[in-house]
Amino acid sequence: MGLFTKDIKTMDDLFLHGLQDIYYAEQQITKALPKLIEKATNRDLIAGLKAHLEETNKQIERLDKVFLKLEKKPSGTQCPAIDGLIKETDEVTGEVDDKAVLDAAIVAGAQAVEHYEICRYGTLVAWAQKLGMPEVAGLLEQTLAEEKATDKALSALAEQSVNAYAEAAE
Amino acid sequence: MGLFTKDIKTMDDLFLHGLQDIYYAEQQITKALPKLIEKATNRDLIAGLKAHLEETNKQIERLDKVFLKLEKKPSGTQCPAIDGLIKETDEVTGEVDDKAVLDAAIVAGAQAVEHYEICRYGTLVAWAQKLGMPEVAGLLEQTLAEEKATDKALSALAEQSVNAYAEAAE
Repeated sequence: MGLFTKDIKTMDDLFLHGLQDIYYAEQQITKALPKLIEKATNRDLIAGLKAHLEETNKQIERLDKVFLKLEKKPSGTQCPAIDGLIKETDEVTGEVDDKAVLDAAIVAGAQAVEHYEICRYGTLVAWAQKLGMPEVAGLLEQTLAEEKATDKALSALAEQSVNAYAEAAE
Repeated sequence: MGLFTKDIKTMDDLFLHGLQDIYYAEQQITKALPKLIEKATNRDLIAGLKAHLEETNKQIERLDKVFLKLEKKPSGTQCPAIDGLIKETDEVTGEVDDKAVLDAAIVAGAQAVEHYEICRYGTLVAWAQKLGMPEVAGLLEQTLAEEKATDKALSALAEQSVNAYAEAAE
């Protein structure tokens, strides 16, 4: 997007920009997750992150289908939000030594990313419905449901990691 | 935080880091909201953003109380996530010309910020409860409820702005 032109003229343009934003975000997430998996120690957390990595790859394929339906070439656009979220998780987890505390920090970082996705997909689903694209809305809704389920699973893992910390401290 | 030291040793350290992160984030939000208010055109959206700016100032005061309870000096820590979220909203809204589309982009940006806060406050409430700080958890829970209400109000405004766009296009 040009910095001195107004490239977004219609709601369809804004919708396409949103798709490109989340397309880039999903790709950055596939690069960030292996690093978190390597740092994590709780077995359930590792399994959950691995499953979410596979799911993310399928979500990218689903976005490819959305671009195809819109007769647009799948492409990403720089997304400072996801870059910032990933950078912050990297920095915080790099500061932690204790295993249970590190797991808690990983879960918190992963949940911040999930919330970003839940918000973006929620907006895209609403826009697709309003713009008269029920099939596209349906595809995006599948991913939205998956992201919500991941966030819920992470909440349970958060509780586990803090409990493990408390037990170890006793 | 040092880049080559492991400064977060305990869950209490991680909790304090989370507080400092959201303290910085809230302050950046008070700087970003006036710019969005200036760009917005829908009267309800402008009123909603203004009310949220006032609310954000009160949420910062509430965080001051939390730091006081913990006998810590209120302070922020660089939060690349909120910086990225604000930068992205700035960039996207800068690309839009049409008033209704611009309002839709503003709402989407504001909701991404709200979701970040909902996630962070949700984590902090859970940690405060686990760490045996019910009063602190209660304070943070008040803010969490406000952020959720703001997100809900923004969803209604999102619908309004897209409807306005569709009507203008007819």
